[in-house]
Amino acid sequence: MSNARIQVEKLWTPDGWQGDVPLFDDGLSASPELLSGHWLPGVPNTHSHAFQRAMAGLAEYQTDAADSFWTWREQMYAFAGRMDPDSLYAVAAQLYAEMLVAGYTSVCEFHYVHHQPDGRPYDDPAAMSRAIIAAARDAGIGLTLLPVLYQRGGFDGRALNERQQRFAHDTNAYLRLIDALRAEESQRLRIGVCFHSLRAVSMESIDVVLAALPSLGGTRPIHLHIAEQVPEVEDCLAAHGARPVRHLLDCQPVDGNWTLVHATHLDDAEVRDLAVTGASVSICPTTEANLGDGLFALSEWRAAGGRWSIGSDSHISVSPVEELRWLEYGQRLKTGRRNVCVGDAGHPFRRHVGNTLLAEAIHGATASIGSTGDGNATQGYIRLDAAHPALQDHDNSLVDRWLFSGNTPAVSDVIVDGEWLVRDGRHRHGDGIADRYRDALRQLLD
Amino acid sequence: MSNARIQVEKLWTPDGWQGDVPLFDDGLSASPELLSGHWLPGVPNTHSHAFQRAMAGLAEYQTDAADSFWTWREQMYAFAGRMDPDSLYAVAAQLYAEMLVAGYTSVCEFHYVHHQPDGRPYDDPAAMSRAIIAAARDAGIGLTLLPVLYQRGGFDGRALNERQQRFAHDTNAYLRLIDALRAEESQRLRIGVCFHSLRAVSMESIDVVLAALPSLGGTRPIHLHIAEQVPEVEDCLAAHGARPVRHLLDCQPVDGNWTLVHATHLDDAEVRDLAVTGASVSICPTTEANLGDGLFALSEWRAAGGRWSIGSDSHISVSPVEELRWLEYGQRLKTGRRNVCVGDAGHPFRRHVGNTLLAEAIHGATASIGSTGDGNATQGYIRLDAAHPALQDHDNSLVDRWLFSGNTPAVSDVIVDGEWLVRDGRHRHGDGIADRYRDALRQLLD
Repeated sequence: MSNARIQVEKLWTPDGWQGDVPLFDDGLSASPELLSGHWLPGVPNTHSHAFQRAMAGLAEYQTDAADSFWTWREQMYAFAGRMDPDSLYAVAAQLYAEMLVAGYTSVCEFHYVHHQPDGRPYDDPAAMSRAIIAAARDAGIGLTLLPVLYQRGGFDGRALNERQQRFAHDTNAYLRLIDALRAEESQRLRIGVCFHSLRAVSMESIDVVLAALPSLGGTRPIHLHIAEQVPEVEDCLAAHGARPVRHLLDCQPVDGNWTLVHATHLDDAEVRDLAVTGASVSICPTTEANLGDGLFALSEWRAAGGRWSIGSDSHISVSPVEELRWLEYGQRLKTGRRNVCVGDAGHPFRRHVGNTLLAEAIHGATASIGSTGDGNATQGYIRLDAAHPALQDHDNSLVDRWLFSGNTPAVSDVIVDGEWLVRDGRHRHGDGIADRYRDALRQLLD
Repeated sequence: MSNARIQVEKLWTPDGWQGDVPLFDDGLSASPELLSGHWLPGVPNTHSHAFQRAMAGLAEYQTDAADSFWTWREQMYAFAGRMDPDSLYAVAAQLYAEMLVAGYTSVCEFHYVHHQPDGRPYDDPAAMSRAIIAAARDAGIGLTLLPVLYQRGGFDGRALNERQQRFAHDTNAYLRLIDALRAEESQRLRIGVCFHSLRAVSMESIDVVLAALPSLGGTRPIHLHIAEQVPEVEDCLAAHGARPVRHLLDCQPVDGNWTLVHATHLDDAEVRDLAVTGASVSICPTTEANLGDGLFALSEWRAAGGRWSIGSDSHISVSPVEELRWLEYGQRLKTGRRNVCVGDAGHPFRRHVGNTLLAEAIHGATASIGSTGDGNATQGYIRLDAAHPALQDHDNSLVDRWLFSGNTPAVSDVIVDGEWLVRDGRHRHGDGIADRYRDALRQLLD
C-alpha cells in the first residue's frame, strides 16, 4: 500500500515514453494527483560503503611514492576506526539524502564496520546495522542491507590485523546478525548476505551461510567483492590454481541471486562462463578509476548477455550521471569508438546510449536489491527538471542530455513509495541532515 | 584599473593559503571591502568551441555500427550549419555564464564558424567573432578569441567540402580579420591566431601568418589542434613522412607562445622534444573521452617538464572539476596507481593532487590566454562554498575535496576584474541569458 495516489504525464520505460501513467495508489483517494513533466524510475545504487562518504577527497595526496589501492586501504582503515553508531548514522543519512537528490532511489549497503574499535561487539551486536537502517529510513531511500562476513586477512588464511578486528564475525554470530535484522524487513528494507571477498572468507564459511539461508526466510541477494585488483588475482592463483571468478564458479552454485562487485580483472572465459549463470556485476566506475583498478570489460560482458548495474562504492562521486557517463567513456577510450553501449540497432529509442544504459542499469539491479519484480522494486521515481537549460528536448534524446550534457543537478523531484522526498532539488530534511553531518565530521576529523 | 577594492580572508596560492590578501584596487576607495572565506584564482579554460554547447548530449546515439570521431564530425557540421550570429551569441553567453558558475574565469575560444551557411562572408566579415565577443562581455568572462584559419580538407590538399565552406579564409582575408578584431582588445579581451590543424592548413600558410605577426602588434598566442586521432597521424605520415608533432617541430619555430590542443597521440621522442620548446598542451579530458580519442601521456609530459592546461572543448562537460578529476583518473587507470599528478614530494601542500593539478593548470595556461603575467591574467577569483557539506576542511586538502568529492556545484562566488559576476552560485544575468538560450535552442532544433 502506498502513501498517495499519483499519476504522471510522461514516464520513461525501456521502450519509450508512456503518457498518463498511474504510479502509486493508496486505495483511498478518489482521484489521482496529476504530475506534469518527464518522470523516470530512480536508479538503483548497488554498491555502497556509507562511512567512506566522509573521507571522500581526503586520500588524494601522496603518502608513498607508489600509492595504490593498498596504501589507500590503510587510510580507509584508519578512518573506519573512528566511526561509531552516531557518526555512522549522520554520515549515512547525509549520503542517502545526496543519493536521492542525484536520482538514486535505492541502495545496497555493503556493511562491514560492525564492532567497537577494539573488536568487541557493541551491547547490541547489530548497533551499526541499525544506524544504517535508521539513516535510510530518515532519508527515505530504499535499502538493501548487506551485513558483511569478514574472517581472514588473505587467501593464505592469515589472521585479521588489528584494524580489521571491527569487521570480524564467526559464522554463527554472523547468522545470528542476519536473523536479528530480518525482523526489520519492510517495503523499503531488505536484508541480504554478503562475503567481503574470497580473500577474506573461505569457501567453507560460504558453504555454511548458503546452507543456512532456508532457515533465514529463503532466497536473499548474495554479494561479494571480486577481482578488483591484480594482486588479488595473483594471490588466488597461487593459493587455488585458479583466478577468483573461476574459483568461485568451480566451488559455488552461482546463479541469478549473486552480485559480483567490480569483477575488473576477468579473462574471456570467465566473462562468458559467469554471464551464463545469470549473476549480475556491480560496476563502480568512479571508484574503480579513483583507485586505479582498471576498466570493466563491459562490451564483452554485454555481448555475452551479462547483467550489470552501478554502484557509487567509496562515494568520491554520488551521481548516476557520472557513473553511467564514465562507464560508457571508459569503453570509448578502450576501443577508440563512440556510442558503444547501445541496444537494439533496429529500435530508435534504444540506439540512444542514455536509454540503453539506464534500462540495463535498472534491469540488472533487480536481484541485487532483492526484488522479485523489476529493478525499481522500491517504487522510486524521479522527475527531470523541466527548467534546466541542458534539458530542452522532450524526445528520445532527453536521457542522453541528462547523462551526457553538463554537470549541474538536473533532477527536480523524487518520490519513493508515494512519499515526496525531494522537491525542486532539495531533500525535505536536507538542512537538518547536513547540520548533523557537519557536527559528526568535525568530531571525526578532530 | 579595477572596478572595486577588495581584500580576501584567505587566498590559495601554489605554495599554500595566504591570509588577508588584497585582490583588486580601484584607486578610489579609502578602505577595501573585506571578504571572508577561501578564495582561489579562477581556472582558465584554454579550448572551447562555443556553438557545440547547444548539441551537447545530442550525438550520443548510434548512427553507424562503427560510430567514431568521424561520424560525430558529420553531426557537428550539420549543427554548425544552423548557427547565425544571433544564435551563436545566445549559445555562447549561456556557455560562458555556466563556465563562470563552475569556476572558469577565462576562456580561449577556438572559433571557426565564420561565414554564412553557403560560405559567403557576412556583410561584416567579423560578425560571428563579434557575437562571441559580445557574449563574453555580457557574461563577464575573460576571452582570448582565436579566429581559426581553415583552408583545405586534408593533408593531400583536397578542397573543402560544402559544409566546411563556412570555415574558409584565404590567408589575406584571415589577416584582415585579425587586424579588424585587435582594435577590440581590452582588459578582458585578447586576440590570438589559430590554425585549425596541420591537415587543414599548409605550412606555407602558417609561414605567412607568422610573418605578419609583427605588423599585427607583435607576439600573440598561437593555437592549433594536433594528433587528436590516429587517422590524422597516419595521413600526416603518408603525406610528409613524419608524425604531426614531429612535422610541426621540423617546420616551425615552436616556442612558448604555442598551444597544441589534444596532442593525444605522441611518441616518446615527440613528448620530449615538444616539452623543451616551452609550448603548452591543452588537454580536454571529457571531450577526448566522449570522442574516443584516447588518454594524453600526462605522466611522461610532466616528467619532461611540459606545461599544460585544460579545455572543455565540445562542452559535454562544463566544469574544471570533471576535467581535472578525470585527467588524474585517466593516469590512474593507465598505471594502476593512485595520486599520480603530485608535485614536490617534500612539499606537504603540493603532495595533494588537487593543489598540484590546480597550480599546473593555471600556470600552464599563461601563454595560451595571452598573458604576460601568470595564468590568471584576467584577474578572476572564485570562492568555495563555505556551507557545502563536502568542503569541511580548511586546510591543505580543501582543493582535493573540491576536485575529488561529490558532484554538486561548490563555487559560491566569482569576481572578475573587480566585478561580482556570481553570488551564491547564481550568475547575475543568468535568468535572462538562459531565456535567450532556450529561445535560440528551440529555433536550432526546430
